[in-house]
Amino acid sequence: MEIDKIKVIAFDADDTLWVNETYFRKAEHEFTQIIKPYCSNTNIDKALFEKEISNLSIYGYGVKGFVLSMIELAIELSDNNLPNTAIHKIVNIGKTMINAPVELLPNVETVLDELSKTYKLIVATKGDLLDQERKLAKSGLLKYFDHVEVLSDKKEVNYKQLLKKINTKPYELLMVGNSLKSDVLPLVAIGASAIHIPFHTTWAHEEVKEINDKALTYTTLTSINDLKSILIN
Amino acid sequence: MEIDKIKVIAFDADDTLWVNETYFRKAEHEFTQIIKPYCSNTNIDKALFEKEISNLSIYGYGVKGFVLSMIELAIELSDNNLPNTAIHKIVNIGKTMINAPVELLPNVETVLDELSKTYKLIVATKGDLLDQERKLAKSGLLKYFDHVEVLSDKKEVNYKQLLKKINTKPYELLMVGNSLKSDVLPLVAIGASAIHIPFHTTWAHEEVKEINDKALTYTTLTSINDLKSILIN
Repeated sequence: MEIDKIKVIAFDADDTLWVNETYFRKAEHEFTQIIKPYCSNTNIDKALFEKEISNLSIYGYGVKGFVLSMIELAIELSDNNLPNTAIHKIVNIGKTMINAPVELLPNVETVLDELSKTYKLIVATKGDLLDQERKLAKSGLLKYFDHVEVLSDKKEVNYKQLLKKINTKPYELLMVGNSLKSDVLPLVAIGASAIHIPFHTTWAHEEVKEINDKALTYTTLTSINDLKSILIN
Repeated sequence: MEIDKIKVIAFDADDTLWVNETYFRKAEHEFTQIIKPYCSNTNIDKALFEKEISNLSIYGYGVKGFVLSMIELAIELSDNNLPNTAIHKIVNIGKTMINAPVELLPNVETVLDELSKTYKLIVATKGDLLDQERKLAKSGLLKYFDHVEVLSDKKEVNYKQLLKKINTKPYELLMVGNSLKSDVLPLVAIGASAIHIPFHTTWAHEEVKEINDKALTYTTLTSINDLKSILIN
């Protein structure tokens, strides 16, 4: 990473700027409690993950697809014996998630405030468009960002399109995020820089088993606060 | 509309470039057939419209929110007596809609091809991000567009943000779409131009009763093909 060439810093949002995965874990726990009395499967978490993955190409990322996958799985696991009240509770898990307050991670606002004096800051997040826009509005962080891009996926092709859209060269971009798979590896692969700030919980779909290519280099930090010492003299 | 100042033509997608509302009407019909045996309400269409509107601020536009609203309403109207098989059928209505082929409206491709020689063409659509990106890819029309913007809503503020994003003045933009409410009135209100091309079916939420402000002027065409005679000498 050549710091003096960086002009734009892109931030992932969920679990980088604010808490997200924690709400999904909580929702999965509630889902299990709701359907447990009606099904014999002992590994509901695993079955839900598999259902989400099998529906991912249809529904994409976000709460609404998550709820539809929960409903479909619940009906299957209960062998068509789930009471309507249980399905209604699953629908309400989703509404509660969508309406949840935005809980910023520590030091996020002060770091954005400082970095925004030197760099152009943007958000590059995936998920549901309305949901992400709403979370950004609730977060109070919009004023620090020049551009917000909600992507349907975070693969190399999506980042290349983003670079074109914001008229930026790969070496001018630094991406900061909690997911190695989505926020780091595709960036490094297209010649941009990336900083990995792990969140304590990672969705199984975002986990990468091993990084084979030794040429892929990136920096790992434990807190967003550490960005200041790297990026500001 | 001062044609010689227009630089960018923005097209709505659903029911402007391809058929969409027809699929929703078909889905509503199927939904009614599925739940009719279990409920006494005789105006299911109206109840569904009201449910969609009451959930719109939570779910936004698109198929996934539509399906979640159908499930919620079906449970309510049946007084918690809907069989799981019926709910599963409702989930599958959504999957069928998402996987439906894209049926272009007549002359769309030739018109885009001709206009793209003179103007910068963009797509400005609302709805689900992944769903709209997928439809554009399936449509084969992506090559004609310089920019694709999926908006969470189509109000004046959304169009102002779009103009900023594409670095375009209001008087340089012409929007073409089937919805007076979403594709015409907000544009005219912010000083851009708009052409209305009605589709034979309009969702009740997009209907406008009366246009009070006589100062709001826009052009209505019966077919996208008529754009050529207006915009190309």
